[in-house]
Amino acid sequence: MTAKDSVLYPPERLKTVADAVGANGLDVLLLTPGPDLRYVTGYDAKQLERLTCLAVPAGTDPFLLVPALELKAAQASPAADLGVEMVTWGETTDPFGIIAGRVGDPHSIALADRMWALHVLAFERAFPHASKQLASSILSALRMRKSAAETAALREAGEAIDRVHKNVPKWLKAGLTERQVGARIAEAILAEGHVSADFVIVGSGPNAASPHHEVSDRVISEGDVVVVDIGGTMPSGYCSDCTRTYAVGHAPDEFTVYYEVLKRAQDAATESVRPGVTAESVDATARGIISEAGYGEWFIHRTGHGIGLETHEDPYIVEGNAIPLEPGMAFSVEPGIYPGPHGARIEDIVICTDPATGAGYQRMNNVPRDLVIV
Amino acid sequence: MTAKDSVLYPPERLKTVADAVGANGLDVLLLTPGPDLRYVTGYDAKQLERLTCLAVPAGTDPFLLVPALELKAAQASPAADLGVEMVTWGETTDPFGIIAGRVGDPHSIALADRMWALHVLAFERAFPHASKQLASSILSALRMRKSAAETAALREAGEAIDRVHKNVPKWLKAGLTERQVGARIAEAILAEGHVSADFVIVGSGPNAASPHHEVSDRVISEGDVVVVDIGGTMPSGYCSDCTRTYAVGHAPDEFTVYYEVLKRAQDAATESVRPGVTAESVDATARGIISEAGYGEWFIHRTGHGIGLETHEDPYIVEGNAIPLEPGMAFSVEPGIYPGPHGARIEDIVICTDPATGAGYQRMNNVPRDLVIV
Repeated sequence: MTAKDSVLYPPERLKTVADAVGANGLDVLLLTPGPDLRYVTGYDAKQLERLTCLAVPAGTDPFLLVPALELKAAQASPAADLGVEMVTWGETTDPFGIIAGRVGDPHSIALADRMWALHVLAFERAFPHASKQLASSILSALRMRKSAAETAALREAGEAIDRVHKNVPKWLKAGLTERQVGARIAEAILAEGHVSADFVIVGSGPNAASPHHEVSDRVISEGDVVVVDIGGTMPSGYCSDCTRTYAVGHAPDEFTVYYEVLKRAQDAATESVRPGVTAESVDATARGIISEAGYGEWFIHRTGHGIGLETHEDPYIVEGNAIPLEPGMAFSVEPGIYPGPHGARIEDIVICTDPATGAGYQRMNNVPRDLVIV
Repeated sequence: MTAKDSVLYPPERLKTVADAVGANGLDVLLLTPGPDLRYVTGYDAKQLERLTCLAVPAGTDPFLLVPALELKAAQASPAADLGVEMVTWGETTDPFGIIAGRVGDPHSIALADRMWALHVLAFERAFPHASKQLASSILSALRMRKSAAETAALREAGEAIDRVHKNVPKWLKAGLTERQVGARIAEAILAEGHVSADFVIVGSGPNAASPHHEVSDRVISEGDVVVVDIGGTMPSGYCSDCTRTYAVGHAPDEFTVYYEVLKRAQDAATESVRPGVTAESVDATARGIISEAGYGEWFIHRTGHGIGLETHEDPYIVEGNAIPLEPGMAFSVEPGIYPGPHGARIEDIVICTDPATGAGYQRMNNVPRDLVIV
């Protein structure tokens, strides 16, 4: 494990998780590859049909089951520094039977939230007497509260995607298709230090009113509004996500009116962030300003989502989520207004901070939020 | 839907699947985003925490549940041409309740193989009386038998990755790290027409003996053997996967000996492919030659995996899989020998064909399989 890895993925975390397994009355936590496994071990394994699984039983030692052909890869990963036993299985043996042979007949198991049904149903057969719950019932509380090293990793991700947005005006030209602009942006996401470009939304003209539009062959033209919502994963494992709205040549008059409302809502919601404020009240702040200005029916999604090893994770900034924010919680603040035939969204990643150190929040994205005319 | 899409993802497929749901005694098939959903509808949706789900009930009309903010994206997808009702849900409603309200209290449900546990457990709560099985219990038999259009898509993918391998000798140089070479290959995978570079294994020196090694900061040097196993996804959704082994400057003598055994095994296994031959017998052919030459203990994985919308899917070419091959089945033939301090693997995608039209197989990869000295 590199020094940087061991700060971001501290080996003591496994002990914290193992203690939580027992304290929550669980018999065993089962983590297949994905963000939960990476959080606990630092091991960035690929999710495949062959079972790789960290088993964390209550009261006894955890072990990592890996396909024989992945053993060397696992030994070269940060998981090797955790002191967990690595158990291998061959191509013609039953890996679920190996786990059952070691953990017995548990009454309650927790499964990685992103575990495939393929494996969920196999664990169900292997553990017929166990009630199932999600790993997030234990891990979400830990993963939501980012350490200083995780905050630094999110800041690094934010700076990388900000550098991409700074260059978007160079690539966003009338006459090009959304797909052409998107391809240039995807290259830049990698060039600025991400290991993957996870999503590239270039929604121009009427497509700006479709929040999860990706790219199309629509040719961008003068007078178009363009929503550019982009993000990727850094070598650290932590994600970026930032939206800016651009106008090509000029913006329609009625657009300029609601863009200013949106900017005001995004600012007010962000500035409302501090410890003790609830997630849903941040949503209510943004929604209140937009509704009061008469655009409420066009704000058709929640205000934001947590971010870390996943682009979308707890805490969600949505009506009904009464969780009080705490220092270290990281999430997007991204209201949108989509009346058609155009639309707009502004998104920054924000971290709740201790007001004793300044404000109750810090923005991880710092490119200007004014409408950019390209 | 474009003309090409409608051939690759024929709208009548949904009817075939709906008939299979009833014929298999299932009450409802539930497909969240992933290869199963794309196969049935052509819709390449992103797997997210917000539920998108095609429900195919026995005997009544299928419907596609989508988050309200994804409706325009779904309407712009090939799913719009299937005539299925699109049902939306808002940010503060329970999407599982909407499905339950429409399909009642089923006794048996089938879930997309890659559905996240997050959604599996929610469906379990929504349908407390239902037994669960995997969607593959219905879809695997269909997905395994590729249509002419799917075969053409795999051929296009094979040609694209072959173009990358043809250029690997230009980039594989002593003095560069695996990571540097891998980055150049990843760019080429995209430049040759893939929409994503799904994996890039550059295993040099001792790393060549770790089958699922990816890349590291190891500097490649004169006399190294390098396993390069690469693949991506084409705009069609179909995947490529091809491995060649290279030597830098010269190959160790003992390596040359087993490389020839490996090449013979890969050729013989490929040439054994024809309708009626079992998947496991293709494995046995490769394994027999390698074992007879004394390297059996170093061939530590199955001979291959099916390929299509997933890099790994049915049929698996492994001991214990007695399925007889049929025309249209597509899979890798990729024996390997990993004695350390080096190793080798040769992999082509092969399609079983009707011998009346020529041989009983066709290779989708056609770069030479001889050891390439760079």
